[in-house]
Amino acid sequence: MDIRTMQLGIVGLGRMGVGIVRRIVKDGHTAVGFDLNTSATEALQEDGMVAAYSLKEFVAALEKPRTAWVMVPAGATGAVIDELATEMDPGDIIIDGGNGHYHQDISRASQLDAQGIHYLDIGTSGGVFGEKRGYCLMIGGDTEPVARLTPLFESIAPGFSAAQRSPSLHGTPSTAENGYLHCGPAGAGHFVKMIHNGIEYGAMAAFAEGLNIIYRANIGLEQADTTYSAEVTPIENPEHYRYEFDNTQISELWRRGSVITSWLLDLAASELHTSPTLDDFAGRVSDSGEGRWALAAAIDEGVPAPVLASALFSRFSSRGESEFADKVLSAMRRAMGGHDEIIQ
Amino acid sequence: MDIRTMQLGIVGLGRMGVGIVRRIVKDGHTAVGFDLNTSATEALQEDGMVAAYSLKEFVAALEKPRTAWVMVPAGATGAVIDELATEMDPGDIIIDGGNGHYHQDISRASQLDAQGIHYLDIGTSGGVFGEKRGYCLMIGGDTEPVARLTPLFESIAPGFSAAQRSPSLHGTPSTAENGYLHCGPAGAGHFVKMIHNGIEYGAMAAFAEGLNIIYRANIGLEQADTTYSAEVTPIENPEHYRYEFDNTQISELWRRGSVITSWLLDLAASELHTSPTLDDFAGRVSDSGEGRWALAAAIDEGVPAPVLASALFSRFSSRGESEFADKVLSAMRRAMGGHDEIIQ
Amino acid sequence: MDIRTMQLGIVGLGRMGVGIVRRIVKDGHTAVGFDLNTSATEALQEDGMVAAYSLKEFVAALEKPRTAWVMVPAGATGAVIDELATEMDPGDIIIDGGNGHYHQDISRASQLDAQGIHYLDIGTSGGVFGEKRGYCLMIGGDTEPVARLTPLFESIAPGFSAAQRSPSLHGTPSTAENGYLHCGPAGAGHFVKMIHNGIEYGAMAAFAEGLNIIYRANIGLEQADTTYSAEVTPIENPEHYRYEFDNTQISELWRRGSVITSWLLDLAASELHTSPTLDDFAGRVSDSGEGRWALAAAIDEGVPAPVLASALFSRFSSRGESEFADKVLSAMRRAMGGHDEIIQ
Amino acid sequence: MDIRTMQLGIVGLGRMGVGIVRRIVKDGHTAVGFDLNTSATEALQEDGMVAAYSLKEFVAALEKPRTAWVMVPAGATGAVIDELATEMDPGDIIIDGGNGHYHQDISRASQLDAQGIHYLDIGTSGGVFGEKRGYCLMIGGDTEPVARLTPLFESIAPGFSAAQRSPSLHGTPSTAENGYLHCGPAGAGHFVKMIHNGIEYGAMAAFAEGLNIIYRANIGLEQADTTYSAEVTPIENPEHYRYEFDNTQISELWRRGSVITSWLLDLAASELHTSPTLDDFAGRVSDSGEGRWALAAAIDEGVPAPVLASALFSRFSSRGESEFADKVLSAMRRAMGGHDEIIQ
Repeated sequence: MDIRTMQLGIVGLGRMGVGIVRRIVKDGHTAVGFDLNTSATEALQEDGMVAAYSLKEFVAALEKPRTAWVMVPAGATGAVIDELATEMDPGDIIIDGGNGHYHQDISRASQLDAQGIHYLDIGTSGGVFGEKRGYCLMIGGDTEPVARLTPLFESIAPGFSAAQRSPSLHGTPSTAENGYLHCGPAGAGHFVKMIHNGIEYGAMAAFAEGLNIIYRANIGLEQADTTYSAEVTPIENPEHYRYEFDNTQISELWRRGSVITSWLLDLAASELHTSPTLDDFAGRVSDSGEGRWALAAAIDEGVPAPVLASALFSRFSSRGESEFADKVLSAMRRAMGGHDEIIQ
Repeated sequence: MDIRTMQLGIVGLGRMGVGIVRRIVKDGHTAVGFDLNTSATEALQEDGMVAAYSLKEFVAALEKPRTAWVMVPAGATGAVIDELATEMDPGDIIIDGGNGHYHQDISRASQLDAQGIHYLDIGTSGGVFGEKRGYCLMIGGDTEPVARLTPLFESIAPGFSAAQRSPSLHGTPSTAENGYLHCGPAGAGHFVKMIHNGIEYGAMAAFAEGLNIIYRANIGLEQADTTYSAEVTPIENPEHYRYEFDNTQISELWRRGSVITSWLLDLAASELHTSPTLDDFAGRVSDSGEGRWALAAAIDEGVPAPVLASALFSRFSSRGESEFADKVLSAMRRAMGGHDEIIQ
Repeated sequence: MDIRTMQLGIVGLGRMGVGIVRRIVKDGHTAVGFDLNTSATEALQEDGMVAAYSLKEFVAALEKPRTAWVMVPAGATGAVIDELATEMDPGDIIIDGGNGHYHQDISRASQLDAQGIHYLDIGTSGGVFGEKRGYCLMIGGDTEPVARLTPLFESIAPGFSAAQRSPSLHGTPSTAENGYLHCGPAGAGHFVKMIHNGIEYGAMAAFAEGLNIIYRANIGLEQADTTYSAEVTPIENPEHYRYEFDNTQISELWRRGSVITSWLLDLAASELHTSPTLDDFAGRVSDSGEGRWALAAAIDEGVPAPVLASALFSRFSSRGESEFADKVLSAMRRAMGGHDEIIQ
Repeated sequence: MDIRTMQLGIVGLGRMGVGIVRRIVKDGHTAVGFDLNTSATEALQEDGMVAAYSLKEFVAALEKPRTAWVMVPAGATGAVIDELATEMDPGDIIIDGGNGHYHQDISRASQLDAQGIHYLDIGTSGGVFGEKRGYCLMIGGDTEPVARLTPLFESIAPGFSAAQRSPSLHGTPSTAENGYLHCGPAGAGHFVKMIHNGIEYGAMAAFAEGLNIIYRANIGLEQADTTYSAEVTPIENPEHYRYEFDNTQISELWRRGSVITSWLLDLAASELHTSPTLDDFAGRVSDSGEGRWALAAAIDEGVPAPVLASALFSRFSSRGESEFADKVLSAMRRAMGGHDEIIQ
């Protein structure tokens, strides 16, 4: 393990920026930080971070060769990097640690390369728990700057002890076993992060569907009235659906010894303990881009991704985006058979 | 073509029962009809149908060997057939012309066979237009009773001229070319009808999805505000989605010369002409059983049916049945990243 | 109906180019044609087409204001249009009648507009049958050039009589009822064609899945051996799957009176008549772009398109593109439960 | 925690039966075992298990009230339970610990109840690792016999320490936190296990699809030849797909700190370490029933389960079950546009 101490500049001190600063400072590295939100910047001074109050000041506070990790919302990243690039020098490194699209990384890296500035795209996973657990780092870019920053990655990533060693591995742990990996050239980090999020969408949807089937296993209790109607399928075997399951206890149960133990399940159980019927939520599920990009990549490559697509489309539907399609179906049904819609 | 005239008894004088009566009477056959709704029965007397006012009376009015075509809602079919069976004699034929499950046909045929009564399951397609266009008949059961009823099938089915002949066919048209087919033993008729409806679900959904993508091709006009948010993906290329398409004219257009000309498209265009925005509909789409059974058959056989499944699930979702699943997703997102739901 | 006769230049005399030439010449219009394949060009001289043997000669043979309809493979279209643009003059019209991407139309139209040349994108459906049936024309571009070419569209499109009139329509038929439609500005024609093809994919897959379930309805006959294995699910109710259906007759049957009558069904029946087991085919299904673009549009718009996605992915899978994914599943199964793969 | 020692009889000493015997014996309980495979029975005598060599002997060796845990392949379970029932007495307990269908549990429990024998269905998850990690127990049946067996469940299940406590929980752990749960009446255990396996299918497929997209991210390197063909979509942006990713290292990486850490990922990484290209596998993925039943339950309940369906259908496709459907598509394409299949 590389134990040199280094300096890291961070633009963007939101949840994840703060976590990164605290993890490196704790290991003896130094940090320079800037955020438009001055109070966020000031708060971290207590942790030993050097505070900057403009991008110019931020660059000036860094020792050459500089490293600037940009951790701002994806929509703002381009402008920040452009401005940094005007202030920085050949040999410096700019990192996009946000959820950028890897297409942009490819062009950005090429532009900055013309100035002699290194560009790394680092997909960073860990969410609100990353400060404590460490962040999984998926890194794209040239070899030299990646190697240069190894001591920082060692501090930011979860480290070897975060998981039990894979049975067939021996000897010195790989960087992947420490929680960071140089995945390939420009864009490779965000590509791998994009797929990671696509898998996340699919696995989340698997849990959501399963819990929903359990939730509705009481349907045989409800349907006392089995009067036939041409518009609604009566349940054929109500005696098979007379369960009143406790999804909260079931989610908790699966956390131990089952095949589907996972961090996502931990989260689901935790939320259900807080609110068993999830009444706080309307069920309008956002998507923040990576799932779409991952599906678009599958299409470009010509490889099937039905689970990913289904997971994404469920989110779209949850926001009402299938409404016109549904109306078309109802209209066709009426035209065909005189079927009216059932409005309950 | 078999031109003998025959007698047919019909129980259930709803839309389709009426159409069948009228088509056979027009061809010189005789009809005996019964319906719980007396006025429906009386109305058809003007068409020459013999009216019965009880099942007993209905059976008594039929000449042996009798043929009783049951055309009542699926939930009522079992009771009607049971009662008919007690009144009828060996050599008689009972037909289920409704949307019964083929599993039931298999057991029903076996029970009636023990009494010497023939049982036919006839999947009948045509909807509200069948009286004029003729009904497509998918027939299951033993060979002898099917052959016996050929003259009736000739009158009920659309006939050879209903479609242009398939290019490679010559000589005497098959019964399929006349619009009816003995598909196989008990259950075969409803099996084929079930798959027919499954295909219908899939094709309907294909149109609904396509028209929805056209409907939302204006999204680049709406999103003037592209402010970044971690919760919503901003549209990347709004200039690609600035169309204000006319789905009504487009549906009409496709009816001529396109690869997707079809009766379902005719219906969609017709409905859109009446109501271009389909505001009459809430978009809660019913499903009446066959789609579910078709998917269950695919699962039993171990063959993939992703389009059929997607079409069915879209209907379930349109009725709000994914709500708990969606809430689970929102809950997991909050737990993971502190993401709040966007309620617009 | 506009009965002026006009001149049309056509680059690309493949199946569809030939059909267009013949349809307009038959109506008294004149045609100038060019194709790299000289024999295709010569053959059409017999139909009255003026033959050109270079693009320069082609442009020279057209009267101003010229109209050049480009009907070449999508990969070659750009180069042809670029060369035409250098030869043509303000007020001339260039048409892309192939399966171009509407994104390209938007930029191409804008470039040609700077030269004063009109650009139309015309999605053209009809396949090998179009010469006889007429071509469904989905047109994007400015209003003036579209209006100018009306007499040609009247000849190329199928015309009013190609379908029964939608019930609620009266009076002078719209252009859509004649089989052509000005769908909107640049790209609109190819957008609508793209969605048309997406719907086609979905509807085709619906038929393919349904026929496959029918095909495998014999599974209860096969599985005499129901010995249990932890690796394979034994069929639970073999008595439900003992049918030996005739998919050829069933497809033919559905062509008359059923809800799923359609041109796609006509094609399926026609092919099955020729080869009931389809042994000529390996089942490696190509896709030519529009389905992918339609799905990408759905993703951009944030609208669900599960049927379209399923249809596209089935094609990818048919070409072996899920192989690595499948191996991952087998590997996980072995790791989890010691399950070996069943190689039959 | 209930620390009484008890006696358990086990029929079926395969992987999981052995694990259960060893876990209870280690905690001071006593075990009686029977398996048709005599050597399996003998081997466990060294662990202190009492060996029986017939079901009669097995029942005789148990003290009343007896508990017989049946852990045999699902196809054999019915016969074993029937035979046990003839030998056992009122107050005894029979457990099906295998992957039975919950429909059967409902009827079996009712039959045994008439004899005064208790029936429990216990979904048991843990695979080959269960002996060491403990088994997650999903229990269905009446309250008294479940309560009676608590000491055994405590030994078989993983226990409280197997997972970090959910943040909002305090005080005495629930049984779910110890890894076992009385889920509800007869069938409830296997219902919950069935859904568990359905979720497993979905999550596995999410990983498989994601790794496949990464695997094919090199497609831009391959396609040097971009010659246009009407049959194959050329890749539009080859520069976006020129990565040579290392799926093994990426899977290992995600095990630490990422949002998708899970036992399934541990398994995938472990297998990839052993064989990075997974050449041992043909990619024919079995399914053992629960996934089908879970999907059938979703259909019965009318709730959407697109991810589960996609995951199941991918397995069907991997075994060649879409072949006829694919041929139908190729046939339609040829009929429509003269497109030939591309055989590579």
